[in-house]
Amino acid sequence: MSETLSPSARTESLRRLDVGGLRALIRAGEYHGHTAGLASGRLQTNLAIMPERDALDFMRFCQRNPKPCPLVGVTDTGDPRMRTLGDIDIRTDVPAYNVYRDGELADTVYDLNELWRGDFVAFALGCSFTFEHALMAAGIRLHHIERDETVAMYRTRLETVPAGPFRGGTVVSMRPIAREHVGLATEISRRYPLAHGAPVHIGDPAEIGIASLASPDWGDPPVVGEDEVPMFWACGVTPQNAIRHARLPLCITHQPGRMLVTDVAEDAEVPVIAG
Amino acid sequence: MSETLSPSARTESLRRLDVGGLRALIRAGEYHGHTAGLASGRLQTNLAIMPERDALDFMRFCQRNPKPCPLVGVTDTGDPRMRTLGDIDIRTDVPAYNVYRDGELADTVYDLNELWRGDFVAFALGCSFTFEHALMAAGIRLHHIERDETVAMYRTRLETVPAGPFRGGTVVSMRPIAREHVGLATEISRRYPLAHGAPVHIGDPAEIGIASLASPDWGDPPVVGEDEVPMFWACGVTPQNAIRHARLPLCITHQPGRMLVTDVAEDAEVPVIAG
Repeated sequence: MSETLSPSARTESLRRLDVGGLRALIRAGEYHGHTAGLASGRLQTNLAIMPERDALDFMRFCQRNPKPCPLVGVTDTGDPRMRTLGDIDIRTDVPAYNVYRDGELADTVYDLNELWRGDFVAFALGCSFTFEHALMAAGIRLHHIERDETVAMYRTRLETVPAGPFRGGTVVSMRPIAREHVGLATEISRRYPLAHGAPVHIGDPAEIGIASLASPDWGDPPVVGEDEVPMFWACGVTPQNAIRHARLPLCITHQPGRMLVTDVAEDAEVPVIAG
Repeated sequence: MSETLSPSARTESLRRLDVGGLRALIRAGEYHGHTAGLASGRLQTNLAIMPERDALDFMRFCQRNPKPCPLVGVTDTGDPRMRTLGDIDIRTDVPAYNVYRDGELADTVYDLNELWRGDFVAFALGCSFTFEHALMAAGIRLHHIERDETVAMYRTRLETVPAGPFRGGTVVSMRPIAREHVGLATEISRRYPLAHGAPVHIGDPAEIGIASLASPDWGDPPVVGEDEVPMFWACGVTPQNAIRHARLPLCITHQPGRMLVTDVAEDAEVPVIAG
């Protein structure tokens, strides 16, 4: 990808790439940016990598908290290929990675060639892009996308079901939805259990322990119109927080917004490429 | 439950029990029979118990084969309580258990009080009762239920995605469905991803490696009417076969038809009781 292109021309050029072209660029270390809107129609996922020692507890945590932690792929121990989601090498095929040591962000890297270990297990978790695309296709407006902002995210008092060292509150994302579309938005998102499913709460933020919508814990402050209702979905930051609070000696995630782009169709009933 | 009741009076008496009453009876060792039609509206599940050593691979197998192996609950290692699905003690709350040693059926028991070990992990897997109830509620006839027979099940050439020692063909159950209801039956079952989801095949059995519908590998031979189409769903016998073929030194399952009855609503979007 030539660096002489203007930013908008570069974005247009990226958007035209199919999943194979985009992945080749990322694998070659030539793209470290956001993946929103790229490789349209393909499932994108959150990523968590940890030693096998903690993997069974983390899988139990995902199973017990399927709305914030919808598990769509897991590697064999030590195998960097995420075979069930496509021709993927987890060491190179994500634009940027965060490395946590003892729960603290220790480093940001663009590949894991040096860090990969024979006892690593990688997990791919569904993300909200999938149901957002379905909402927009149904004519439901999403302000944060129209404004090119980051969706507002909040800590809540909805506790996760713990597993081993993994625990903590559910983090939610909030989207203001036109009152007449609340039922439709619920119904559509429920169809995507591997992308957080139906909302966990609709309406008064205080009921789930959010003091002020104007002060999100992550993302941009939202504007909720008079004829709109705040709708809250479980969010992929939940497992990231649980992982950090578990203070694993070593754990690696994607950088927020820089997702793993898979070969799987975004609306696949079952996100597995049989092997 | 008095043994002096006639069989039909006994069945009626069982059907009137709520989930708490039924579980108390099973826990006390006073009922070892089938659970079909009992504790109406509650999720029933298949059961697999194995040492922790094999649990991560088995969870990977379930994640990679979600249609035959929809995982709805997993215990902490050594903890016999399946906390996320209700007030359940997995050692006593299933009517009857099969004990496999090195892949061979070694024993049938009515509780696990003697066999339970500190390294055991128990898995609950969704079963077809859930979508069958939804099909019948929509007015779709299911012959095997009307005839009080066991649904016909077949080995296929649809291979599962392997994980560690777990592998093998997908086993399917077949239900003849009126031609005009095929679309509706597909749509309804797709809504229950934790009960095998949409069919894996519709129509010609030869296409998935079934030589003759008249000779099922398990269950009763079916009759397919002229205006009916054979519909094939992934079946919970698949993980049981995978477990047996893995030849684990020790593994325990429920006895077919004698399921774990949970506190969770059968149509719950997410089968977890938080806590």
